[in-house]
Amino acid sequence: MNAEIISIGTELLLGHIVNTNAAYLSRKLSELGVDIYYQTTVGDNPQRLTHTIRKALVRSDIVILTGGLGPTVDDITIEAVAGLVGKPLVLNKVILADIKNHFKARGIAMPAGNERQAHIPEEAKWLRNKVGTAPGVIIEYHGKVIICLPGPPRELHPIFESGVVPYLKKRYASGWVFRTRTIKTTGLPESRVNIIVKDLLKLPPPTTVGIYAKLGQVELTIMAKAKTKRAAQVQIAKIEKRIYSRLKDYIFGYDDDTLEGAVGRRLIEKRKTIVVAESCTGGLVSSRLTDVSGSSKYFIRGAVPYSNEVKVKYVGVSAGTLKKYGAVSRQVAMEMARGIRSLMGVNIGLAVTGIAGPTGGTNKKPVGLVYIALITDTKRAVKEFRFAGSRADIKWQASQAALNMIRLCARS
Amino acid sequence: MNAEIISIGTELLLGHIVNTNAAYLSRKLSELGVDIYYQTTVGDNPQRLTHTIRKALVRSDIVILTGGLGPTVDDITIEAVAGLVGKPLVLNKVILADIKNHFKARGIAMPAGNERQAHIPEEAKWLRNKVGTAPGVIIEYHGKVIICLPGPPRELHPIFESGVVPYLKKRYASGWVFRTRTIKTTGLPESRVNIIVKDLLKLPPPTTVGIYAKLGQVELTIMAKAKTKRAAQVQIAKIEKRIYSRLKDYIFGYDDDTLEGAVGRRLIEKRKTIVVAESCTGGLVSSRLTDVSGSSKYFIRGAVPYSNEVKVKYVGVSAGTLKKYGAVSRQVAMEMARGIRSLMGVNIGLAVTGIAGPTGGTNKKPVGLVYIALITDTKRAVKEFRFAGSRADIKWQASQAALNMIRLCARS
Repeated sequence: MNAEIISIGTELLLGHIVNTNAAYLSRKLSELGVDIYYQTTVGDNPQRLTHTIRKALVRSDIVILTGGLGPTVDDITIEAVAGLVGKPLVLNKVILADIKNHFKARGIAMPAGNERQAHIPEEAKWLRNKVGTAPGVIIEYHGKVIICLPGPPRELHPIFESGVVPYLKKRYASGWVFRTRTIKTTGLPESRVNIIVKDLLKLPPPTTVGIYAKLGQVELTIMAKAKTKRAAQVQIAKIEKRIYSRLKDYIFGYDDDTLEGAVGRRLIEKRKTIVVAESCTGGLVSSRLTDVSGSSKYFIRGAVPYSNEVKVKYVGVSAGTLKKYGAVSRQVAMEMARGIRSLMGVNIGLAVTGIAGPTGGTNKKPVGLVYIALITDTKRAVKEFRFAGSRADIKWQASQAALNMIRLCARS
Repeated sequence: MNAEIISIGTELLLGHIVNTNAAYLSRKLSELGVDIYYQTTVGDNPQRLTHTIRKALVRSDIVILTGGLGPTVDDITIEAVAGLVGKPLVLNKVILADIKNHFKARGIAMPAGNERQAHIPEEAKWLRNKVGTAPGVIIEYHGKVIICLPGPPRELHPIFESGVVPYLKKRYASGWVFRTRTIKTTGLPESRVNIIVKDLLKLPPPTTVGIYAKLGQVELTIMAKAKTKRAAQVQIAKIEKRIYSRLKDYIFGYDDDTLEGAVGRRLIEKRKTIVVAESCTGGLVSSRLTDVSGSSKYFIRGAVPYSNEVKVKYVGVSAGTLKKYGAVSRQVAMEMARGIRSLMGVNIGLAVTGIAGPTGGTNKKPVGLVYIALITDTKRAVKEFRFAGSRADIKWQASQAALNMIRLCARS
């Protein structure tokens, strides 16, 4: 079974927005065991859109269209599909009532244009949109399926999860079950992870492993196909165990886990609290720690002592140390961590100092040099890193390394 | 003149990465006056790739391929193109020397596999890759052009700018000049901007205006086509003036400007320094301010007083005010701004407090309620905002509003 994704929108062809829908749908469909061979983007031109859908119907079982379901005359997806399958558009009163209610809940009357969105091809199925006004539409046509979905991700995702997934599972009950498991690591470069799991990357189907590198993070995805859910899980567990035994502490989470989320869970589990002083990361470590809902349970204080005066006055660095070793040094990192931790009752003190660039580097202290210090009641450590890339890249990698030091410390 | 973009990579079809290259290339090409009618993504399957390129050559003048130029046998772009145009692959010694030098600079010998990347179709032009190992390749074929570029954005962007743009400008000297100008605003919702510039959005070619909304930011792009650079600039200036007269202070920048960059320029220009205390944004305002190279000239101190104890101890909020009004209140915002500004010689004190959610809201103080206070020698202001969306959405919108308050304050 295979599918093709067609994204519709002139703003995509002009490059004004990045197409995240194609990646979202591809990932979700691959988890259902559906192969994707093509993703196409077209504008709101009726000829080119119809041509693209027709070609997709020839080579794919399922054609998923996103976008072009809005209330304006530029939104032509439904007309194009209706024309192609030779069905008239008919007013669906349930959809119309839904749309009217959507506006009523916001205290306004439905604009006249939105009535268009209640017209769908005769005999088509439809999927309720609880976030916006355009319903999802499913048309079965000569053994193939055309699925039209709204373009905004916040409307697309819930309709796909609650409407499209159950529909596809029912229609294509293939006897096969597909499962994926993503293992997320940090602290090792891709080339190292590659060597460590090289044999697993060559495993033949039905259980395969893929490697994907992001900035400061390497992910391994296990994909399994089996006759039962249980069998797929067993296959995945077997490979997961092998990967775990090799990468152990470098693994911070699975699937939708984030590093900051993993850090938060550890801190809550171990009832630890943390304070952070950061210079070159400029608040990014604190911001990522507080991206987690409930982080006020463990995150107590962040400080961004950018000037030397503030490092001395508010974070307890000594002027002598600053003068002797410079702001970017092991010694200052350690004093920042000790100073920020002087707050009563706090467990972990973390500090980051470095040169984010692109200016400010010297031969002895180049751009990308970062020191991260961590102090607890029983431990103290300071690590040196040398990151490459733009200012934003260096900030991000330093924040990954800092969060990972907290995670490893909070573990024990 | 029109072009088509073909992105190559199984990781794109699996949804493991989002395709930012298609948006980048589309935007750059539209600025050159090149129309894009299709973007397609295919995997590393030779039949489907060849089929896709052949179809693109029929309907488009320029076909741009990204990805599949790596050193492994899965990287088949160059073979597919060579096969299609009927040219043998030949070793290019200059490229080979470039690749060897790339590794030499990193202190390692070239792995054997990378020699593949020095083979290009006979008679093809090539573009030097200063960041990675795969060169760009240009093949002219029956009046059409095929351009192969590496997939990693950090390699793609410099090759496109320094190699592809001059090539296309020279080859397609059409007599027409294309210019775009993007005007970036914050502080007004899209629906309001839409009403304010409604007539301009309907302007007929050769000078048109488009509107694009992002979270906490609305952008207007003017596109002009003319016989000379000067004429295009005059057309754009005319429309820009009309937009400026209507949106004035909501405009923070143009084209590649960021809000944090605009704030930084203003602060440097007016020789102002700033300190920031932020609670619900958790360090995001400080992090964005310090994303700008050279920000140490104006950014002195950031504080993330997450707990009430820290608000009292390090930012000078009174325990009485906290008890009487709660941490999320005008009063506490104001005391945070005043307290953080007590540092000698600082001009602007800014403070943010609010409820980022998804939990922690009440009927009187719902999720999304945010207070931002700003104090200078001569001014003090505190504003209430009610933002919607996820925790990340609310943090981002609050950071936009905070940066915008700094910008407007530093202006005068």
